[in-house]
Amino acid sequence: MGRLSELFEPDSVAVVGATDREGAVGRAILENLSTGFAGEVVPVNPNRETVLGHECYPDLERAPAVDLAVVVVPPPVVLETLREIGETGIENVVVITAGFSETGSEGARRERELREIAEEYDLNVVGPNSLGIMSTAVGMNATFGPERAIEGGISFMSQSGAFITAVLDWANDQEIGFRDVVSLGNKSVLAETDFVRQWGEDPETEVIIGYLEDIDEGAEFIRASRDVTDDTPIVLVKSGRTDAGAHAASSHTGAIAGSERAYETGLEQAGVVRARSVQELFDYARALSGLPVPESESVAVVTNAGGPGVLTTDAVGDSTLEMASFTEETLEGLSESLPEEANVYNPVDIIGDADADRFAEALDTALADPNVGSAVVVSAPTAVLAYEDLAEVVVETRDRHEKPVVTAMMGGQRARAPEATLRESGIPNYFDPARAVSGLDALARYRDVRRRSRDDPATFDVDRERARRILERTKSRSGNQLGIESMDLLEAYGIPTPEGAVVDDPESARELAESIDGDVVMKIASPDIAHKSDIGGVKVDVPDAEVADAYEDLIARARNYQPDAQILGVQVQESLDLDGSTETILGMNRDPQFGPLLLFGLGGIFVEILEDTSVRVAPIGETEARDMIDDVKASPLLAGARGREPANTDAVVEAIQRLSQLVTDFPAILEVDINPLVAGPDDARAIDLVVTVDTEEL
Amino acid sequence: MGRLSELFEPDSVAVVGATDREGAVGRAILENLSTGFAGEVVPVNPNRETVLGHECYPDLERAPAVDLAVVVVPPPVVLETLREIGETGIENVVVITAGFSETGSEGARRERELREIAEEYDLNVVGPNSLGIMSTAVGMNATFGPERAIEGGISFMSQSGAFITAVLDWANDQEIGFRDVVSLGNKSVLAETDFVRQWGEDPETEVIIGYLEDIDEGAEFIRASRDVTDDTPIVLVKSGRTDAGAHAASSHTGAIAGSERAYETGLEQAGVVRARSVQELFDYARALSGLPVPESESVAVVTNAGGPGVLTTDAVGDSTLEMASFTEETLEGLSESLPEEANVYNPVDIIGDADADRFAEALDTALADPNVGSAVVVSAPTAVLAYEDLAEVVVETRDRHEKPVVTAMMGGQRARAPEATLRESGIPNYFDPARAVSGLDALARYRDVRRRSRDDPATFDVDRERARRILERTKSRSGNQLGIESMDLLEAYGIPTPEGAVVDDPESARELAESIDGDVVMKIASPDIAHKSDIGGVKVDVPDAEVADAYEDLIARARNYQPDAQILGVQVQESLDLDGSTETILGMNRDPQFGPLLLFGLGGIFVEILEDTSVRVAPIGETEARDMIDDVKASPLLAGARGREPANTDAVVEAIQRLSQLVTDFPAILEVDINPLVAGPDDARAIDLVVTVDTEEL
Repeated sequence: MGRLSELFEPDSVAVVGATDREGAVGRAILENLSTGFAGEVVPVNPNRETVLGHECYPDLERAPAVDLAVVVVPPPVVLETLREIGETGIENVVVITAGFSETGSEGARRERELREIAEEYDLNVVGPNSLGIMSTAVGMNATFGPERAIEGGISFMSQSGAFITAVLDWANDQEIGFRDVVSLGNKSVLAETDFVRQWGEDPETEVIIGYLEDIDEGAEFIRASRDVTDDTPIVLVKSGRTDAGAHAASSHTGAIAGSERAYETGLEQAGVVRARSVQELFDYARALSGLPVPESESVAVVTNAGGPGVLTTDAVGDSTLEMASFTEETLEGLSESLPEEANVYNPVDIIGDADADRFAEALDTALADPNVGSAVVVSAPTAVLAYEDLAEVVVETRDRHEKPVVTAMMGGQRARAPEATLRESGIPNYFDPARAVSGLDALARYRDVRRRSRDDPATFDVDRERARRILERTKSRSGNQLGIESMDLLEAYGIPTPEGAVVDDPESARELAESIDGDVVMKIASPDIAHKSDIGGVKVDVPDAEVADAYEDLIARARNYQPDAQILGVQVQESLDLDGSTETILGMNRDPQFGPLLLFGLGGIFVEILEDTSVRVAPIGETEARDMIDDVKASPLLAGARGREPANTDAVVEAIQRLSQLVTDFPAILEVDINPLVAGPDDARAIDLVVTVDTEEL
Repeated sequence: MGRLSELFEPDSVAVVGATDREGAVGRAILENLSTGFAGEVVPVNPNRETVLGHECYPDLERAPAVDLAVVVVPPPVVLETLREIGETGIENVVVITAGFSETGSEGARRERELREIAEEYDLNVVGPNSLGIMSTAVGMNATFGPERAIEGGISFMSQSGAFITAVLDWANDQEIGFRDVVSLGNKSVLAETDFVRQWGEDPETEVIIGYLEDIDEGAEFIRASRDVTDDTPIVLVKSGRTDAGAHAASSHTGAIAGSERAYETGLEQAGVVRARSVQELFDYARALSGLPVPESESVAVVTNAGGPGVLTTDAVGDSTLEMASFTEETLEGLSESLPEEANVYNPVDIIGDADADRFAEALDTALADPNVGSAVVVSAPTAVLAYEDLAEVVVETRDRHEKPVVTAMMGGQRARAPEATLRESGIPNYFDPARAVSGLDALARYRDVRRRSRDDPATFDVDRERARRILERTKSRSGNQLGIESMDLLEAYGIPTPEGAVVDDPESARELAESIDGDVVMKIASPDIAHKSDIGGVKVDVPDAEVADAYEDLIARARNYQPDAQILGVQVQESLDLDGSTETILGMNRDPQFGPLLLFGLGGIFVEILEDTSVRVAPIGETEARDMIDDVKASPLLAGARGREPANTDAVVEAIQRLSQLVTDFPAILEVDINPLVAGPDDARAIDLVVTVDTEEL
């Protein structure tokens, strides 16, 4: 893939399919490109000599060389146009034309071909079915939309063209500026990860925002975003969050929906700040594009209005922020400068007769406090407070400190001009104090992203070849599952299991039992019998002397229950003393977008009724494995709550990491269910296992 | 208390403390009252002959009779002014003057006196420390704020004057109209419940909204609001939701904070729709003031933009609403009228080339569907869609159906004029589809309020006198607690307990044990020993023959552990077979604002670690008692999840109701802790008990 930056900063752009026909998309694009763009615009259309005053060329070969081609020809002609583009040596293409995978199987076939051509010629293709792209740096509007972005630091991608037009009209009204805007269309070639990488390297992009309905390659997206978010925040609306929404999204774009749970953890692991609505997206973007990242989560609130001050404090309580505790010095400073009736504790209430100067003094004192990471200025209109003056002193005061400040100048008309003053200095103003706090909270969440620990997944010494051989057993099975007879799969990856094995005659069973201390547990081993207990296929506390009989009995029961079941034998397992241990569940489900999704929870009602589980996309490092345990509400039980003996959580953390390595090493593993993984004071041991394998992937 | 409606519709208003001094509050009020108010305005000030052209009177006695007096005299003169008002026969007063309970003990004393005078003369007093009141019906602005409300159907009360000025400037900008506006001030006499009652009876008030920092008399507020919300919705921001916010609120108004948990359930039981922010308050109010209440929670979404359609669907998924499933007829109708590429399933995507007529047709078909309760129209700007036309056809189409419609015409400038068209027809427009849905959701939540079951608390046949005698035992105790020796308190109210009693010699213990079937449980009974098990003060499965010895042993242990402990004897109790039973916890805590707050949860980790409990303000009826069980996440365990024997939940429901009756009958009971209440297949029995009593209240 060539340099993507040329897509946004071309010296010349061809419009293939340009026309002057009223209402045609090929005209709208040419018109938009002819306004404000400093580079050359080259219409291509075999049926015209000129279009809208530009000289028109019959094909790309005969046209001047360009950096970017925008394609608006009818669907059947798109593929040959792309070949022509490839032959001419143009690298960057935006395909506006619709009628591809969004329209059914014929379109999907055409889109596959489009992708092949792009690969053959190494083309950067946006679309098809795209509204186009904009780049305010070069004044380029290569879209057919009715709105043009103003210049700013937000780079914006959207899987919905309508979302872009809807937002731009509003954003222009609010004077919110953009750097690049991309309508992703069907994402046949270039997708979200490519733009994340591109904008991550672009020093002028202050924040990357997006509206997405799916993410094509989750693991790749996580990797790229992790790097980018070290320097550049990413805020995304990923729709289809709810079941209803996911259904609507899949009928809109035809995307195969990954699970919302995978998206939730995947985006979090990627360092993405997630927004739930258009408003949140821009509330966050405004804070993230102009403000420095705070050094702490502690917020000072300065207000002339008690009630709104309390509301602001509530919003802080709802967020990841906390109210700052002022130093003695700050409290003294505030007491000296403020009237007696004022409240010098946070939220600082400088009371209703405050003018702008009193705001300035209080804000200055608060921002100077080392315990204060950021500040919110909240004001209600009064006779003595000029909002214009307030805006100016807020800017001045902020400039003396390296700390983020947001404002909630409440009001309508009277807040408009002051708001512009603030905006020019990078200070976002919000009507609602709760929204001001949520903007600051996005900044604090981004701070956490920057500070997150980034331990690489551990690589344990495992027996990968042995694991492969065990997985290959499924090839000789009727189903594609492995069960307790394959506990050695876990052993190969160092996840402890009880002593024992599957044997296929009574005598071996007896011998094995004798080699194991104490009584044994015996279970029927059959890939076809899922609920062993239900058919009496499990015997506990079997003394050595009864093992041979028990073997015969178990086999008989299984045969009786399901005559055609494939019976592998009987598992003879050490009898564990589970007193003082906690049953946990450790599993994995492969998500279509994000790949291996690890799941952890406490056994029994905790998973089944309370749905108290945590998930992460593998591979994960130690910190994330530990977080998986801590995220579970019942985790205090593992730590020894209510007089229990504390479990060895380090052993659980290691088991999670080892499973992470196993499922990362073998994409053929579709599902793992270790239920239970028994966490005791000394170790964590897998007692039962079901593994589902895609035998074709092996 | 006199007629409150006269407060809002006076024929004449006196301003006591009126002045023409620049910047004085007494001038600002007179100026505001002189604009737009049709009635007579009477300035009172002994030092002036005229004020701002009005004839001024030295005192109320010599002034013409008025319906309402607004008091802006200095704090020391307020009380004598109130007496004068009382003597003159004026019933309605707004005290603007500050310097009362918000300023410390001297002010609090003055406020108590103010309240006494108000009682003596039966005055309706708003304030003190109030911004004033407005009534658009008579054009009266009796505030000193810079803004004046425009006419509409929202009646608005606020415990913060600044909140009113902050909101009005913005609301005027949005053309949101009000009926009455009240700055509650210190709520010395008139408080939220009075205005809820007043506006509940006012046919012109479409919705009651408020900003509150506390609620004075929770039980009374619940009663009044329950009645009012049958006809008029109430939306409240109650700030101090979070710990930080509650702290800030108490330093702002000096209010004693009730627990957020009590507010949450109390407001819910009152039928109040709660908003968390200014924006939500008005998003909800706009929907609740203009739209009919929907007949079902099913929503149709009609849009020209796929992406925003998906976002809208997500917002529906987040709400109490659900996406409507269209009838076959509707699907056919939509298929016939829409282009082939459109999506006729909900969300209906009428695609990007839709004009207003196509919107009208699709909306009309959707609203005609009996499965559709309400609709959201979501639009992105396109070249072929005129927003003005869209607004008009939405109004026309809506007028043909008795169903609520909201719009999210996304955009800035271009949405402004159409928004006014919609507003005039009572259709709220929101920029963000998520906010449009949340407005509709407020309406659906209000629908639930109207439909809630209103079963009166049951009155069981109980032995109230016996209960009183038992409670009075605390008077002879060192502490104010009752324990297991007082299980008969529960018996008096019909809550089952195991067979047994507290006895105070070994022989009685043996006799009692013999009268009980099987072994017994024995527990030391002492108000001074809280954790009986920890000191070996509990013996289980004691055979009759060992009871006497066990008695001696328990007494010895207690004496040894705490020589000065008051020892009441030993409880000898029937040994219950708890297999197949579930331990629950049933309790009560008296909240300063809302009174008896019942609590229910499952025992052990569920309450202690998972904090899985539900609460209600007593008294409650059967439905609410049942809801308390259902609200607990672990409740499926009671219903027989995971192969358990189902508990008799009816018995638990009855125990909750009986406790509700007990704590309602005896306000002296401060706390009750029935832990456990064992719920078995047949009954629910209280096994242990701690009751804390306010002996002075008995």
